[in-house]
Amino acid sequence: MTMTASQDHHVNGAAADSLRKNAHNEPSATLHRAEELEDLLVAVRELIIPFIRAADEEAVRKESGDIVTESGGASRNVLVDCHAPAQLAAKMQLVLPDEGQGKQGLLQLIQNILQYSVNTWDQGFLDKLYSSNTPAHVYQVSPALTIVEKTTSKALANLCGFTGPFAGGVTCQGGSASNLTSLVVARNTLYPDCKSSGTRNHDFAVFTSAHGHYSVEKAAMITGMGASCVVGVPTDDEGRMKPEALRELVVRAKEEGKTPLYVNCTAGTTVMGSFDPFEDISGICKEFGMWMHIDASWGGPVIFSRNQKWKMKGSHLADSLTINPHKMMNAPVTCSFLLGPDMQVFNRANSTSAGYLFHGSDDGDVWDMADLTLQCGRRADSLKVALAWLYYGADGFERQIDHAFAMASRLAQLVKETGKFTVLSSDPPPCLQVCFYYAPEGRIDEDADKNTRRTKAIVQKLINRGFMTDYAPGDNGYFLRVVVNIQTLPGTIDGLVKALVAAGEETT
Amino acid sequence: MTMTASQDHHVNGAAADSLRKNAHNEPSATLHRAEELEDLLVAVRELIIPFIRAADEEAVRKESGDIVTESGGASRNVLVDCHAPAQLAAKMQLVLPDEGQGKQGLLQLIQNILQYSVNTWDQGFLDKLYSSNTPAHVYQVSPALTIVEKTTSKALANLCGFTGPFAGGVTCQGGSASNLTSLVVARNTLYPDCKSSGTRNHDFAVFTSAHGHYSVEKAAMITGMGASCVVGVPTDDEGRMKPEALRELVVRAKEEGKTPLYVNCTAGTTVMGSFDPFEDISGICKEFGMWMHIDASWGGPVIFSRNQKWKMKGSHLADSLTINPHKMMNAPVTCSFLLGPDMQVFNRANSTSAGYLFHGSDDGDVWDMADLTLQCGRRADSLKVALAWLYYGADGFERQIDHAFAMASRLAQLVKETGKFTVLSSDPPPCLQVCFYYAPEGRIDEDADKNTRRTKAIVQKLINRGFMTDYAPGDNGYFLRVVVNIQTLPGTIDGLVKALVAAGEETT
Repeated sequence: MTMTASQDHHVNGAAADSLRKNAHNEPSATLHRAEELEDLLVAVRELIIPFIRAADEEAVRKESGDIVTESGGASRNVLVDCHAPAQLAAKMQLVLPDEGQGKQGLLQLIQNILQYSVNTWDQGFLDKLYSSNTPAHVYQVSPALTIVEKTTSKALANLCGFTGPFAGGVTCQGGSASNLTSLVVARNTLYPDCKSSGTRNHDFAVFTSAHGHYSVEKAAMITGMGASCVVGVPTDDEGRMKPEALRELVVRAKEEGKTPLYVNCTAGTTVMGSFDPFEDISGICKEFGMWMHIDASWGGPVIFSRNQKWKMKGSHLADSLTINPHKMMNAPVTCSFLLGPDMQVFNRANSTSAGYLFHGSDDGDVWDMADLTLQCGRRADSLKVALAWLYYGADGFERQIDHAFAMASRLAQLVKETGKFTVLSSDPPPCLQVCFYYAPEGRIDEDADKNTRRTKAIVQKLINRGFMTDYAPGDNGYFLRVVVNIQTLPGTIDGLVKALVAAGEETT
Repeated sequence: MTMTASQDHHVNGAAADSLRKNAHNEPSATLHRAEELEDLLVAVRELIIPFIRAADEEAVRKESGDIVTESGGASRNVLVDCHAPAQLAAKMQLVLPDEGQGKQGLLQLIQNILQYSVNTWDQGFLDKLYSSNTPAHVYQVSPALTIVEKTTSKALANLCGFTGPFAGGVTCQGGSASNLTSLVVARNTLYPDCKSSGTRNHDFAVFTSAHGHYSVEKAAMITGMGASCVVGVPTDDEGRMKPEALRELVVRAKEEGKTPLYVNCTAGTTVMGSFDPFEDISGICKEFGMWMHIDASWGGPVIFSRNQKWKMKGSHLADSLTINPHKMMNAPVTCSFLLGPDMQVFNRANSTSAGYLFHGSDDGDVWDMADLTLQCGRRADSLKVALAWLYYGADGFERQIDHAFAMASRLAQLVKETGKFTVLSSDPPPCLQVCFYYAPEGRIDEDADKNTRRTKAIVQKLINRGFMTDYAPGDNGYFLRVVVNIQTLPGTIDGLVKALVAAGEETT
């Protein structure tokens, strides 16, 4: 999708906002985020304050204990406007649109949520241990936010190819928590005795790319399988898991008497940004009865881009998938979803019987979201995505993501053209990070310590020039790793490349 | 501490604010939270917007890649003002006071944080996968918030009696996450082979009160010990764990070949609000080499009250302790701390080697907070407590908590005086919830189904009268459970009792 002024008739984020000011694809560097945010903060405050004031003013009426009526005699209630889940969903009519609705759409949802939420600021809220809080753990105390979470999760799940009647998801408290939850769901689903008896009767093996995130090792440690049960699968030159290597390692694990349990694939590895070949991996998972999880914490949002979503091909074959809008989509931390083809499976795997909290539902669906997770009291993190979706639209997300990928390509290209660096990322880079060694001699120095020293010195010198970048360990010592985002401007890329060259020249 | 006008010369929350208007201990029901919040929101916005505007305006300068200087020639940098941890702590001088500093203290800390944080809105922030976010996982990207977390955790730890040089804590993403983390730390510390090899070589037993929170069972399930490893310890008439029963069950578990690992004590149980006898339990933990955890998610904040803190006697003997300011202290969800006498123990138990993220520290202390937890990207939830502490002061917390306990006593007393209900809570109630059966005949009906039906009917009828209460399963069917909070006004209690009587009379 190209970026033209006519298509961008609604508000669309800082970088795209800046881009549409200029038809020559050479945007000015003018950002107006401060004004945009101030305007929204004022508008939202004008909705929130009356909500609280209503509870303040209601306090005096509580002293009577009477049924609350309007002056005309109709029943009224500041505390809550109760509806069963299906009724409330129909009333709220939350649709996540392709075309952004800007400020108006955002405010409309907030108004809806205030109308249908329990007003926990009201003196009459004497339920749960949360004072004036709204923990999104059970429908009874957070009805509107439960609808938001179910609607948003389902929309994301559908984009990942999970389209069955019980497809959906939940938010967890970060990518590590989503990945941990997926491992617990996998274990308790494939080997249900573990829920009660633990893992004592099993010797599980868990597989992940050698480039996978450390949370998989941590999840194995937490779940009592031990970090040593994690088998690192070799990657190809571009950092993608090799399916044939996976298969060999699974066979070997079985020969050693282990039970292959779970394969963690990655969509956008932390260091290189690689996407694993999901279809091939799925075949191996099916062959050996393993759970297939995709950690798409970083790269998952490419599902919004017609240009990029081919990288997620085969995602519908997964049993669970983590996606963190707080990374590429710039939602405030934390915002992480665990999605899957069947939420009933999540519920069976995680549910406990806590009669004092979970009072069950009548329609067979799960409306007490905490019962799908490892959590109890929870934040309604899904709201961040719902509001952004109304504001920018799915089309706006697409433009933002396409812009960010264009910036990553530009960076890789310009760094290469300096002749002073060797770029490790493929061309174009698979995701939004660009990795490279300082190599003024035209090739990577064989002295790893020298490379590490140079890398760290350049990173340090860049701070004085107003750039904060990172580094990571590689085959020849530490290399530079720069991550662009949806707000990065072309001028920033140009300036960074100049700064890199200058910092390199100052480095011995 | 009594509530007088002279002591309340600073802002002190809605209920206390209302109380100080009236010297006769009969407060009016006037709440001014809407005005108070509006005033604070405007003031905070006036600090935040210029921070973002500075990044907006800096964008154009990035194109040069030059070292950034002031017009006078001195180096300047919108992105970050870098300091080593100890230096920054000295510069920020964050002291959490006894006496509240109101709006001024709150704004001062926010200003400080903005000054010393990485401005992730700046175009030059090209580090980590977080766009304009500040994930509090490593010091490098969230220096100021790391100081806030360490300072706040240490202050809370000290109040719980953890006073050694490495005493402190971390925030986790809720009480369930804190309890889970404590179980993992316990297991990996007492049986370090579990970190790598898992729990296969052990048959652990975990002990908790029969009235403990379901998260302990869930944590045992997650960690691969299995829910069946949890042994429920009988409680006395007031809902407190019986130490002699604990000891017997530990001995029996050992006789069955199990390894007693962990005792979860509770400070403020979910249903009844009971506090376990920590000193006696500690003796048994020491005798058998078990980890002692206190789940003080709900009742922990009594440490701020000279009148109430005796309930936490012996808390300093624990190996770890969960406290959730998002419950009794009304901090926004989620805000949960896991505290302990030695953070080095937490670090050894949880750390992984992820060289691309954790680059180590020079001073031997842990400054990358995620390396103390099961998390990676994290929210800086500690800020909520730090801001409230500056605003209200420890003395303000004390007044709020004393007020809430007075309201719980008032409720229990008035409910009893109606003659229509049988109160299950002891007199005065141990915490902020009051539990009772509808018993118009003067005693609890023996028909559990009848009690359950009546309880649910009353809870439903109360909603029309503007009160939302909860219910929980007991020996004679479900009973009513009402939770007061620091903002509950006396008039609300009076009205609720009238409403209870009326709703009871409408119920067959």
